[in-house]
Amino acid sequence: MDPVLHSLLSRHSLGGKHLSEPGPDDAALALMADAALHAPDHAGLVPFRFIVVRGEQRQRLAALFADAARDAGKDASGIALDAERALQVPVTVAVMARIDPGHPQVPAHEQWCAVGGALAMFLQAAHALGYAGKMLSGHKVRHPAIQAAFCAPGEMLVGWVSLGTAARPLKASPRRLRQADVLQPWA
Amino acid sequence: MDPVLHSLLSRHSLGGKHLSEPGPDDAALALMADAALHAPDHAGLVPFRFIVVRGEQRQRLAALFADAARDAGKDASGIALDAERALQVPVTVAVMARIDPGHPQVPAHEQWCAVGGALAMFLQAAHALGYAGKMLSGHKVRHPAIQAAFCAPGEMLVGWVSLGTAARPLKASPRRLRQADVLQPWA
Repeated sequence: MDPVLHSLLSRHSLGGKHLSEPGPDDAALALMADAALHAPDHAGLVPFRFIVVRGEQRQRLAALFADAARDAGKDASGIALDAERALQVPVTVAVMARIDPGHPQVPAHEQWCAVGGALAMFLQAAHALGYAGKMLSGHKVRHPAIQAAFCAPGEMLVGWVSLGTAARPLKASPRRLRQADVLQPWA
Repeated sequence: MDPVLHSLLSRHSLGGKHLSEPGPDDAALALMADAALHAPDHAGLVPFRFIVVRGEQRQRLAALFADAARDAGKDASGIALDAERALQVPVTVAVMARIDPGHPQVPAHEQWCAVGGALAMFLQAAHALGYAGKMLSGHKVRHPAIQAAFCAPGEMLVGWVSLGTAARPLKASPRRLRQADVLQPWA
């Protein structure tokens, strides 16, 4: 199979506990961002931004994750697990959306599609560069202290991409639908 | 450069008037749909579906586009131009979204990200297979007769992907932002 198609059809998400060093360096992250900028984006609004968390900053992210887990009523082991999520991942990239709900030409849902396209291309480029990762979201993206730590005015935190080197082979997760379920002739 | 990265960084949208025969055949469309199913998709909801319009069906699409243009108050040449959009493109694929606004785990905006990721991968696979194309939306996606012709209950028409063979070289459109604008360290 063509190497490009093979790459597109072999990417699978891999969670933080299966990611080890190294994570993508500056050059790799720049290529990934460039790929994100090639996603379809009606009117070229670029309604997204990536924020890189790595090295010592992981302690700060872990503390925020622990606070959010505590405020969500998790017990000590749940809190420790959430903090560990930030610490064990080589590189975490926060995905920010900047949606203009009153844009005259581009409805908000199309701007969200552009964010999702950018995210897909960002992860696809990571895969092409030999890295693995996974998008993480959940209740903590709405925690006030976490939002304050990431969001510029008008921005919304979508979630975080965990990035590193696969510590085990990528595995396809079971699919609810196959191509024939999502591709049909016009009736 | 690695062929996969080269592919990711060389896709550009190409509008219908620059697309000629052939468009993607069944095998190519199946690979494109498979790629779409590899986009990040929280909880595997697959909130999208593709509907293929080609051959004689283009006349039916052209008539719908003409009706929508007429209802939007366009003049005769505007109406003819919109109809021509459907006729001249080898393959048009309608992109449908199925958003569950009350999903307990996955907010609607994450489902829209999954739709956008699927669309990006669909177009990326088309590029890898040697085809070009562009997403088209605009007011006509909200025209009642067009919605009736495409949407199953609970579905929303996002737009159409025009697909064919590039009749002129792909050209990067001027970018508002570069990678350094969308990739920043955590401050």
